[in-house]
Amino acid sequence: MATVSIVMGSKSDLSVMQEASKILDFFKIENDISIMSAHRTPKRAAEFSENSVKNGVKVIIAGAGGAAHLAGVMASLTTIPVIGVPIRSSNSIDGLDSLLSTVQMPSGIPVATVAIDAAKNAGILAAQILGTSNKDISNVLSKFKSDLALKVEKDNSEL
Amino acid sequence: MATVSIVMGSKSDLSVMQEASKILDFFKIENDISIMSAHRTPKRAAEFSENSVKNGVKVIIAGAGGAAHLAGVMASLTTIPVIGVPIRSSNSIDGLDSLLSTVQMPSGIPVATVAIDAAKNAGILAAQILGTSNKDISNVLSKFKSDLALKVEKDNSEL
Amino acid sequence: MATVSIVMGSKSDLSVMQEASKILDFFKIENDISIMSAHRTPKRAAEFSENSVKNGVKVIIAGAGGAAHLAGVMASLTTIPVIGVPIRSSNSIDGLDSLLSTVQMPSGIPVATVAIDAAKNAGILAAQILGTSNKDISNVLSKFKSDLALKVEKDNSEL
Amino acid sequence: MATVSIVMGSKSDLSVMQEASKILDFFKIENDISIMSAHRTPKRAAEFSENSVKNGVKVIIAGAGGAAHLAGVMASLTTIPVIGVPIRSSNSIDGLDSLLSTVQMPSGIPVATVAIDAAKNAGILAAQILGTSNKDISNVLSKFKSDLALKVEKDNSEL
Amino acid sequence: MATVSIVMGSKSDLSVMQEASKILDFFKIENDISIMSAHRTPKRAAEFSENSVKNGVKVIIAGAGGAAHLAGVMASLTTIPVIGVPIRSSNSIDGLDSLLSTVQMPSGIPVATVAIDAAKNAGILAAQILGTSNKDISNVLSKFKSDLALKVEKDNSEL
Amino acid sequence: MATVSIVMGSKSDLSVMQEASKILDFFKIENDISIMSAHRTPKRAAEFSENSVKNGVKVIIAGAGGAAHLAGVMASLTTIPVIGVPIRSSNSIDGLDSLLSTVQMPSGIPVATVAIDAAKNAGILAAQILGTSNKDISNVLSKFKSDLALKVEKDNSEL
Amino acid sequence: MATVSIVMGSKSDLSVMQEASKILDFFKIENDISIMSAHRTPKRAAEFSENSVKNGVKVIIAGAGGAAHLAGVMASLTTIPVIGVPIRSSNSIDGLDSLLSTVQMPSGIPVATVAIDAAKNAGILAAQILGTSNKDISNVLSKFKSDLALKVEKDNSEL
Amino acid sequence: MATVSIVMGSKSDLSVMQEASKILDFFKIENDISIMSAHRTPKRAAEFSENSVKNGVKVIIAGAGGAAHLAGVMASLTTIPVIGVPIRSSNSIDGLDSLLSTVQMPSGIPVATVAIDAAKNAGILAAQILGTSNKDISNVLSKFKSDLALKVEKDNSEL
Repeated sequence: MATVSIVMGSKSDLSVMQEASKILDFFKIENDISIMSAHRTPKRAAEFSENSVKNGVKVIIAGAGGAAHLAGVMASLTTIPVIGVPIRSSNSIDGLDSLLSTVQMPSGIPVATVAIDAAKNAGILAAQILGTSNKDISNVLSKFKSDLALKVEKDNSEL
Repeated sequence: MATVSIVMGSKSDLSVMQEASKILDFFKIENDISIMSAHRTPKRAAEFSENSVKNGVKVIIAGAGGAAHLAGVMASLTTIPVIGVPIRSSNSIDGLDSLLSTVQMPSGIPVATVAIDAAKNAGILAAQILGTSNKDISNVLSKFKSDLALKVEKDNSEL
Repeated sequence: MATVSIVMGSKSDLSVMQEASKILDFFKIENDISIMSAHRTPKRAAEFSENSVKNGVKVIIAGAGGAAHLAGVMASLTTIPVIGVPIRSSNSIDGLDSLLSTVQMPSGIPVATVAIDAAKNAGILAAQILGTSNKDISNVLSKFKSDLALKVEKDNSEL
Repeated sequence: MATVSIVMGSKSDLSVMQEASKILDFFKIENDISIMSAHRTPKRAAEFSENSVKNGVKVIIAGAGGAAHLAGVMASLTTIPVIGVPIRSSNSIDGLDSLLSTVQMPSGIPVATVAIDAAKNAGILAAQILGTSNKDISNVLSKFKSDLALKVEKDNSEL
Repeated sequence: MATVSIVMGSKSDLSVMQEASKILDFFKIENDISIMSAHRTPKRAAEFSENSVKNGVKVIIAGAGGAAHLAGVMASLTTIPVIGVPIRSSNSIDGLDSLLSTVQMPSGIPVATVAIDAAKNAGILAAQILGTSNKDISNVLSKFKSDLALKVEKDNSEL
Repeated sequence: MATVSIVMGSKSDLSVMQEASKILDFFKIENDISIMSAHRTPKRAAEFSENSVKNGVKVIIAGAGGAAHLAGVMASLTTIPVIGVPIRSSNSIDGLDSLLSTVQMPSGIPVATVAIDAAKNAGILAAQILGTSNKDISNVLSKFKSDLALKVEKDNSEL
Repeated sequence: MATVSIVMGSKSDLSVMQEASKILDFFKIENDISIMSAHRTPKRAAEFSENSVKNGVKVIIAGAGGAAHLAGVMASLTTIPVIGVPIRSSNSIDGLDSLLSTVQMPSGIPVATVAIDAAKNAGILAAQILGTSNKDISNVLSKFKSDLALKVEKDNSEL
Repeated sequence: MATVSIVMGSKSDLSVMQEASKILDFFKIENDISIMSAHRTPKRAAEFSENSVKNGVKVIIAGAGGAAHLAGVMASLTTIPVIGVPIRSSNSIDGLDSLLSTVQMPSGIPVATVAIDAAKNAGILAAQILGTSNKDISNVLSKFKSDLALKVEKDNSEL
């Protein structure tokens, strides 16, 4: 059973979105990946979101490009946090349409939007959310943060 | 029973969207207006679209602002044409986010998008669509087009 | 005799625009393709549009890039629906100029605009328009919509 | 008989466009103003442009907003220079759509585009064009340029 | 002691940001508001973020305009989720600079960005995050979501 | 002695700008090409513009990228028409900065701006300007325009 | 004799640009203000810049709107630092054109650009530049920075 | 000991940023390069900036992409001039996000921003700043400026 569900609108989004899965694996957070489309499989997307709480999902990560509605559809049908990943797909205007379609949600229905193509950051944000009530995850996050800094310092020392 | 259904995401869109209704009245095309939100009443929006064919609706006109998903939701659940009106609402970036969220639909699910706030044009487009199989409407459209020209010529002669 | 006429501003638009023809063929809708330019062959474009009704055309699909006026020219001279395809041609600013030139039409003269380079969606929209009065087409559209969903579900099951 | 014809797409463009007429009057260049629309009176616009040379017109100034096609229509049907004024009309996206629709013309059919709402500069440019073969106009232009400088210097001295 | 800390870069952001506090009060979630600037009080901002976990804060909401760095500064120094509110302040380009400065974070350091000026949605997102481990909050969220829908349906019935 | 002077800001602009020269050669209009920079050789650019009338130049074509000031510098120091070609150079934001820097000139000093990288159109516009007082050129322009149309019609017939 | 010269393209820029003068007065740095236009008084602008070093000027602050070339002109003719203030003037596209025209300078000729309308920041930057070799100014800057922080803390304590 | 410190947010920025170092070497100005991140090593970045004056640094050059906060962090903690280089990194929207995040700083804390990827110009600007109190540097700058002009003239003569 997944704690974080990763969904994407099209198979072509997979190479971007599996970064979310990889980092969640690193944080030892159960996750699954599905392809479902706000526009081509609207009912499946709706059911998925509606059943998420019942299925024990705590956070949804949704990635899509162009008129990127998937994260919004998820957010409209559940009370758990939905993280949106705007994807710079081949049909998008350098990702700007994806970003605006994901982030500019109406009052009442937020989508927690990360940077364009930033599925890894979506995974980290999911871990941070779960870390608010899970000391283990929050400890790994502290370690992860230190390692990020060490990596930069190593890059610097190698100059 | 309406031939054209006009839907909008929020009461604040009404002043823009009723222009669609007025021009459809002018064309003597039955129409109704409803408020429903892709994000706040997603099920109602889904049902509305799914039942549209059964209810005798031929064309849907959907207006929304910001991350404007309403037209896309409609289009995802019906096979009749959906016309999208991007609205320059108070929470939008001069209408550009509304436009991109409405028009940049994925392959397979078109939304017939008109200009920002152009609900009247949405109504005319609905009439044109119905006019493809209705001689009366197409005659009124010819007359309407001539009148548009006459209006411009009158403006010109008054210079 | 074509029910849907596909026109484009330049030979270089052909690879994009023939997607419209292919999908119309799939829907068994008669269609023809022509190159004509709003700016280089303005009279031919005007005559084409003016004669469209007389020639039995029900829908025009027009694709162009940059200051993309072709769809607007078509729409100005006929009462049948005109679908605009903004093309990301080599001289355009990532398609944004093409999109704005196509969609931001003045009051009275709508162009039903689809996504940048979305000629296939233009063809589907044309089918939806014809489907409002043609049960066969509307049945194929229902089947097409189911197949779209099945394709996504197949992609998902192969993950 | 006018040497410069000023055309605009709508009566609402008049307050912007009459600046072109005023400055042409200042340069003692015959000019007339007409309202005609690329989309609502396409035939009149086409005839106007086609007859311009025969009518002794040397330069056309065309202003329009949104999907601003008027200057392009003019340019498509005449060999005299066409100056385009993108107008920040109420239906435009801060004038950016008007600018891109006016300036991004295809190879073969240039429009000499000036700044958004810059009808006065359009008039000056028309004078510069006529001044290439008219010593009187070019002399007034020199004087005008000196006066512009004097005005700035006067503003400076009053600080 | 606050569970959610709301911070903003300038006193002028208060009218926008207090919507976050109001909705958190509605959800009965302890919250406090502070003004601190990423650029004018960088040390205080850094200390605030560093001490947040120790002080029992679970979520930070940060709002700023222009080159909006406050949310990023917060996110750089803590492991709890940081929600960013891009503010359309008087010195911003219609909020677009604020949005891009908030959302386009580098790999490793996400900011959960909501729509421009959407402080209320930031508060709801904070509640959703806390609701992942707090049944009371998640119940109120369900109620809140139903009420949103009822409000839309009431608006609709009053048409 | 050149009737049209083509100037550009950098050697890297040459491949774009020599299209202006080629089409002017086709129109049998004397032209020369120079590299001079508004920023790196400001005095030479100023002198060039100031001496243009005296040197018999009738039209200047200026191409530059990024903060493209060259056309503006030319226009500030002469009364002959200056045509600006915004160049999508490697340091520009897809040509948008070049376009805005070229076209958004202040009141009093127009630059006749053509599309991004449209040096050929700049040459045609120069011919149109000279054609206002030169029957030979205007005849070639008519022929050129017919040939453009024929080329499109040939492309069409080859479909 | 001024150490910092503030120049602007038009009298209408004065209300924005005098903030630079006020803050320089606060730092007790001699400054003067002039109106001169890159396009309307190009020679005066060129001479001003060329004579700046001789006149003891150490830093130039230049503000302009639209196709904002004034800072670039200054930078092209002197070796002292030139600070550019992009102005959101009535003829600009929300300041974006002014910003791009000011900042996107070619290799070799930098303009130190500050935020749109940020003339006060231009004055502070000039002080920072002079402070690199003037202990008095750098001391006042430290005090100014502390006061900025105190002001934010006072705003915070008054919440 | 360095007079100019060049910092960048990521190793991937090195190829862009070392142009700053090269030109400073040419001007014989001591400089060093470090990698430090506003978001991944915030404390190191803060300390670096705070210690800059004490370490004899006169100017900081900071380059970053996306939500580019590094220059702002530097500027928030020192009184010496900070030059910002917006970088068109792989995660940025063609550099526009980097530019806006760098330049749109709040009142009180300027960043002297140069063009996208213009690290060489950042180095020249640093030299200009130091040249305000160092005759040797200002002499080399004059020579450099002449050489720039000669290079353009050589390019021109080789046409």
